[in-house]
Amino acid sequence: MQKKAKLLVASGEKSADMLYASGLFTPDDFIYFETESEKAVILSPLEYDRGRAEGHRHLNYYANSDFGHNSSFAVLIENMSKAKNISDWIVPGDFPLLLADELRSRKINVTPCRELFFPQREYKSDAEIAQVELAMRATEKAMRHAKQMICDSVVDKDGSLIYNGEYLTSEMLRNEIDITLLKQQANALNTIAASGLQSAQPHNMGSGIIKAHTPIVIDIFPRLQTSGYFGDMTRTYVKHEAPAIVKKAFNAVVCARDEAKKFIRKGAVPSDIFNAADKVLVSEGFTTGRNADGKNYGFFHSLGHGVGLEIHEAPRLGPKSMIPLKGGEIVTVEPGVYYPEWGGIRMEDIVVAGEKSCRTITQMDDDFELD
Amino acid sequence: MQKKAKLLVASGEKSADMLYASGLFTPDDFIYFETESEKAVILSPLEYDRGRAEGHRHLNYYANSDFGHNSSFAVLIENMSKAKNISDWIVPGDFPLLLADELRSRKINVTPCRELFFPQREYKSDAEIAQVELAMRATEKAMRHAKQMICDSVVDKDGSLIYNGEYLTSEMLRNEIDITLLKQQANALNTIAASGLQSAQPHNMGSGIIKAHTPIVIDIFPRLQTSGYFGDMTRTYVKHEAPAIVKKAFNAVVCARDEAKKFIRKGAVPSDIFNAADKVLVSEGFTTGRNADGKNYGFFHSLGHGVGLEIHEAPRLGPKSMIPLKGGEIVTVEPGVYYPEWGGIRMEDIVVAGEKSCRTITQMDDDFELD
Repeated sequence: MQKKAKLLVASGEKSADMLYASGLFTPDDFIYFETESEKAVILSPLEYDRGRAEGHRHLNYYANSDFGHNSSFAVLIENMSKAKNISDWIVPGDFPLLLADELRSRKINVTPCRELFFPQREYKSDAEIAQVELAMRATEKAMRHAKQMICDSVVDKDGSLIYNGEYLTSEMLRNEIDITLLKQQANALNTIAASGLQSAQPHNMGSGIIKAHTPIVIDIFPRLQTSGYFGDMTRTYVKHEAPAIVKKAFNAVVCARDEAKKFIRKGAVPSDIFNAADKVLVSEGFTTGRNADGKNYGFFHSLGHGVGLEIHEAPRLGPKSMIPLKGGEIVTVEPGVYYPEWGGIRMEDIVVAGEKSCRTITQMDDDFELD
Repeated sequence: MQKKAKLLVASGEKSADMLYASGLFTPDDFIYFETESEKAVILSPLEYDRGRAEGHRHLNYYANSDFGHNSSFAVLIENMSKAKNISDWIVPGDFPLLLADELRSRKINVTPCRELFFPQREYKSDAEIAQVELAMRATEKAMRHAKQMICDSVVDKDGSLIYNGEYLTSEMLRNEIDITLLKQQANALNTIAASGLQSAQPHNMGSGIIKAHTPIVIDIFPRLQTSGYFGDMTRTYVKHEAPAIVKKAFNAVVCARDEAKKFIRKGAVPSDIFNAADKVLVSEGFTTGRNADGKNYGFFHSLGHGVGLEIHEAPRLGPKSMIPLKGGEIVTVEPGVYYPEWGGIRMEDIVVAGEKSCRTITQMDDDFELD
C-alpha cells in the first residue's frame, strides 16, 4: 500500500491547491491524483484538449472515459484506484464530504489532511515571488491612481469631496481602482475604499460620499489573470488635516508595522511578531476590546497572513501562531486600529521572510494627509 | 431531535449557498445554521459588526465568543449544538471533510445532502429574475462593444485584424469586455474571446491576433458586484465572409438553439430538450465523437445550465438529465459544434421556463459575418 497517495477533486478557479497542482484555471471540478509513480489529472471531454495544452507538462492526462464513461466522480475514482492499486488517499481538509462518504462506502479510505495539502506552497520559489511582485506593481499603480483622485478633489462647504465636478464616492474610487487593475490583467474582488465611520469596520467595502478630515482606508488585493497570484496593500488617507486622534493613530500604526517587520525572519515565532506590533499600539494608548453594545474596538484582527495563490493563506501572524517561520514565506504586515467613535487606520505592506531579516516587496510611500 | 436542522460552514464569496442564506459576501468562512425556531450566523470579531449591518434581517447574529472564545469551528459548533439541543445536522455535499470528521468524533452527526442544499435556489423569484436581467443588460453592452471593435477593425494583407492602428488580439477584446462590465459594477472572470482553431476548444479563453474569415467565439458571464447574480451570453462572429462549412455550422447552431427553446417549459424533460438541439445538428451533418488522436469533435457539452448565484447551477440540460422542469428555472441554451479542422461555433441565450413556454431574457441580435 502506498502511504502518500494524494487525491484532489476541485476546480482550478476555486481551489488554489488544484491550480498549484495542475496549472489549470477551470470553472468545473476535476480529479487530480499523485502516487509514487505519477502525477495526473482526469478531465471531462469539455476540458481534455485545453487541459493537455495549458496544464503542467509533468502531468499525465487521462480522460474521464479512461476510467468509465459518463460516470460519477465516485465511480471514476473507484476505477482509477483499482487501476493504480491504491486504497488509501490523503485529501485536503476541505475535500467534499458527500464524495468522501461515497468513497468510504466503496472501501476506499480518504483521510483529510490536518496540515497544508501542499506544504511547499507556504515557501515561495523565486518564480512565485516574481509573480507576487508583478501583482504588487499593478496594486501600487491602482493605489497611486486612487491617491491622485483624492488629491485632485476639491472640498465643498459641507466637507464633501468633489472630483471632476461630481461627488467623490467610495463606489467611484473602488471602480477606478478595479479598472486600473484590469488594464494590467489583474482582477480585484471586494476592493475596500471605506471612509468616515465605515472605516471602523475592517472589511466594510465603503459606500457613499467621501468627506474631508476623516480616514479613507483603501485595501487593494488583486489577482493576476495569467498566474493566479495575489498582491495586497492597504493605505489610509485623509483629505486635508486629520483630527489629532486620527493622526496619533496613524503614527502608531505605521510604527507598529515597521516594528513588526524587524522581527520577521527565519526562526521568528508569528505570535512574537504580532505582539511586537500590539505592544507599540498599546504603548500609544490604542487598546483592544469590545464595547457594552457589542462593537469591537482597537486591533482585533491578526497582524498578517501569507499571500500566494490565495489571498489569505498560511502562515497567519496571529497572537496564537506558534510555529516558527522557515524563510521564504510572503506575508502581509497590516496592523490596524478601529474605533466606532472616529473610524479606523490600517497600513499594510507585504514582505518576504529571509534568513536574517525580511525584504519589503511593497513600493509605496506612507503619505497620509493629502492636500 | 430536530430532523431538519441545517448547517453551513463556508465563505459568502466561494459558496453561493452561504451567500443565499446570509446575504454576506465574506472572504473568510463562517457558520450558518437553521433550526425549526431560528436562522442564524456565527461571526468572528472581524465580521460581526459588518455582518449585522449588511446581512439578511431575518437572521439572528451571534459572535464566536457566544460559543467559546477563540475556538475552532468544531468547538464552536459543538457548543452551539448543545445550546440549541441539536445532534444531527444536514450539510451540503461540499461540506469540508476534516470538519465533518471532527464533528462526528464529537458525536455530532453530519449528513451530506445528495440533492441541493436549498432546493428553492433552482426556482427564481421575481427579484432574482430581475437581478439576472440586470446582469444580462451589462453583458449585452459588453458584447455590443466587442462586436463594434471587430466591425471597426480593418484587415491587413495577412488577414490580421487591425484596431485603432494595433493588431486586435483576444487579450484586447477580453480586456475591453471586462472593463465595460466593471463600469457597470459587474465582475468577469475568464471571459472567452477565442478565434481560429482555438475556438474548437469550448473553454479556451483565446490568445493572440484575430484573423478574418475565421470564427471568433465570445462568451461573457459576469457577476453583479452588489447581489452576486450572473449573466451569461455567447455569440460567434466572423470578420468578413465565413467559409462555407463555418456558415453552415452557424446556421445549424442557431436553428438548434431556437428549436430547443420551443421545448422549454414546466414539465419538459431536460434530456428531451438536449435531444431536440442535437437532432438539428445531426440532421445538418454535425455529428459528435472523438478522433483517433483523442480530440473531441461535434457537440460534446451539455445544452445548458441553470444560472443564478452560481454561473453553473441546477438544472443541467444534459443528455442524461431526466427530472422535469418545474417552471421558474433560468437556464442557458447554448448548443455548439467544434471541429479541430476549422474551429467552433457557439450561440447562447438565457431563458426563464414558464408554464407553457419559455421567455428569452437575452436581448441581442444573431449577427454573424461582420463587415
